[in-house]
Amino acid sequence: MGSHFVDQAAALGHEVTVFDHFPYLVSKNLEHQRGKIRFVSGDFANRNDLSTVLEGQDIVYHFICVTNPSESWNDPFIEIDENLRNSIKFFELAVCKGVRKIVFPSSGGTVYGPQKKPVDENVVPRPLSPYGITKLATEHFLRYFHKHSGIQADIYRIGNPYGPRQPIQRAQGVIAVWMRDILRGSKIQVYGDHSTLRDYIYIKDVAYLMTHSLNNLDSSDVYNIGTGVGTSIISLLEIFQSVVDVPFRYYIHPRRPLDNPSIVLDSSKLSAQFHGFKFRELEDKLSETWNYFKTWRKEVC
Amino acid sequence: MGSHFVDQAAALGHEVTVFDHFPYLVSKNLEHQRGKIRFVSGDFANRNDLSTVLEGQDIVYHFICVTNPSESWNDPFIEIDENLRNSIKFFELAVCKGVRKIVFPSSGGTVYGPQKKPVDENVVPRPLSPYGITKLATEHFLRYFHKHSGIQADIYRIGNPYGPRQPIQRAQGVIAVWMRDILRGSKIQVYGDHSTLRDYIYIKDVAYLMTHSLNNLDSSDVYNIGTGVGTSIISLLEIFQSVVDVPFRYYIHPRRPLDNPSIVLDSSKLSAQFHGFKFRELEDKLSETWNYFKTWRKEVC
Repeated sequence: MGSHFVDQAAALGHEVTVFDHFPYLVSKNLEHQRGKIRFVSGDFANRNDLSTVLEGQDIVYHFICVTNPSESWNDPFIEIDENLRNSIKFFELAVCKGVRKIVFPSSGGTVYGPQKKPVDENVVPRPLSPYGITKLATEHFLRYFHKHSGIQADIYRIGNPYGPRQPIQRAQGVIAVWMRDILRGSKIQVYGDHSTLRDYIYIKDVAYLMTHSLNNLDSSDVYNIGTGVGTSIISLLEIFQSVVDVPFRYYIHPRRPLDNPSIVLDSSKLSAQFHGFKFRELEDKLSETWNYFKTWRKEVC
Repeated sequence: MGSHFVDQAAALGHEVTVFDHFPYLVSKNLEHQRGKIRFVSGDFANRNDLSTVLEGQDIVYHFICVTNPSESWNDPFIEIDENLRNSIKFFELAVCKGVRKIVFPSSGGTVYGPQKKPVDENVVPRPLSPYGITKLATEHFLRYFHKHSGIQADIYRIGNPYGPRQPIQRAQGVIAVWMRDILRGSKIQVYGDHSTLRDYIYIKDVAYLMTHSLNNLDSSDVYNIGTGVGTSIISLLEIFQSVVDVPFRYYIHPRRPLDNPSIVLDSSKLSAQFHGFKFRELEDKLSETWNYFKTWRKEVC
């Protein structure tokens, strides 16, 4: 997500600095930007590293997150210690350094909990996973810093993003997991049925919509980022069958207790800001994503 | 709050165990229960202490909280480290020990943030203080344990409680603070105006309504506990002038930035469970509270 946003911001002419500890895969995703934008290597938990890189920044997008929803399902403390505490320290430091705005990518897929209809930003969040609970608490702490010190804050509650550059080894999200398993020749595991809806959104659409904050440094708000269209896990399987050009086997299980039954996001508040914007089609972009994963596999395996 | 609830539960014939580190004031508040109920001294952060006391308990009311809203306004980490982490550890342990239900007193005065009208439990919480943010996150983690392990959980979002036994040295809540200052001969400090509304609720009404969970061990829900009546800080001052039988001076300031402009709770969901229940009148019970503080002062000074 971070690398796609960097591409969008750089293309719009912004001066971009990327701060990361740069494991191999992440720097690979931005190799094409070497020499064009600034890269700073450091540790998010290290105050000195952060302090140096925040100097002179107008707006900071906070893409660092060390967990995913399933990893922390059985360990609330990893969320609190690694994500929540470090994010609060970062917000404090950004205030000290005179950053004008922080952008926080929250999780539309987990902060709301189960929902029967597409939800807008005014629905009561009822997160069920430590991941979602901590994302929501981080949103609240960011709003606390906004009220406390005046720093601006935009929060984007993002659906289920997919697309090129998703990590394949440490796969996150059902689309990447299935593509990995197909490439490995493993049977893919389908959890759920026609009622298990998700809002799959193409990663470049997410990155594009998040540029909204670049043009609005003096406001603070919460926005959903989703297509408003729910796709069931069974429909997703059918799209895979039409898009993926190798045979694969699958096994359908009942939904796991930890899985959200259904979540679809209404993001008309944000998309209304982008005249003529249309979400890319799942079928098209799944095909593109599959081609990416195939090529990627040839390169590294 | 804990000691008043203990009185209610004991009067209803329940077998009560009180776990605390028992500083002087707290044990004083339950001196009349010595020999009638079980007292266990221990440290909430100590797994062994907690583990022992949880053995064989059906329902646990979690009144332990080391902060108040203003104390942690400038220190989010005290909330996370002392309240949130220890509460999650306690929930985990209660699940292991087979506790059937946990009751969590949350904060109706802070989890909702500023609200123009009386709020019911379906309003979107927008906490502004680290105290309120952490109370809400604790609610969510309790619901996570409920979904994860089946332990039942009731959450009470309580307004501004006042009444006998409020600590006077480390005063919390404007009513206790003002009474302390009057007894010391200090000028009382009034922050706000006619629009600064709070939902002051008599502590014994809070304790009584919380007995609901004792009769409902197999359900889980969230309830507001407030009177539904907003009293402005200026009206409160006028009631003090009619109730307090010594002269006192006051100074009216504008509302502080950290103060919630207005919060009033609709708790009809819970009070409908108590046939014929009526909230006690603020004027009557302020008078009783003032008599308590006067007597208390004579005893210790």
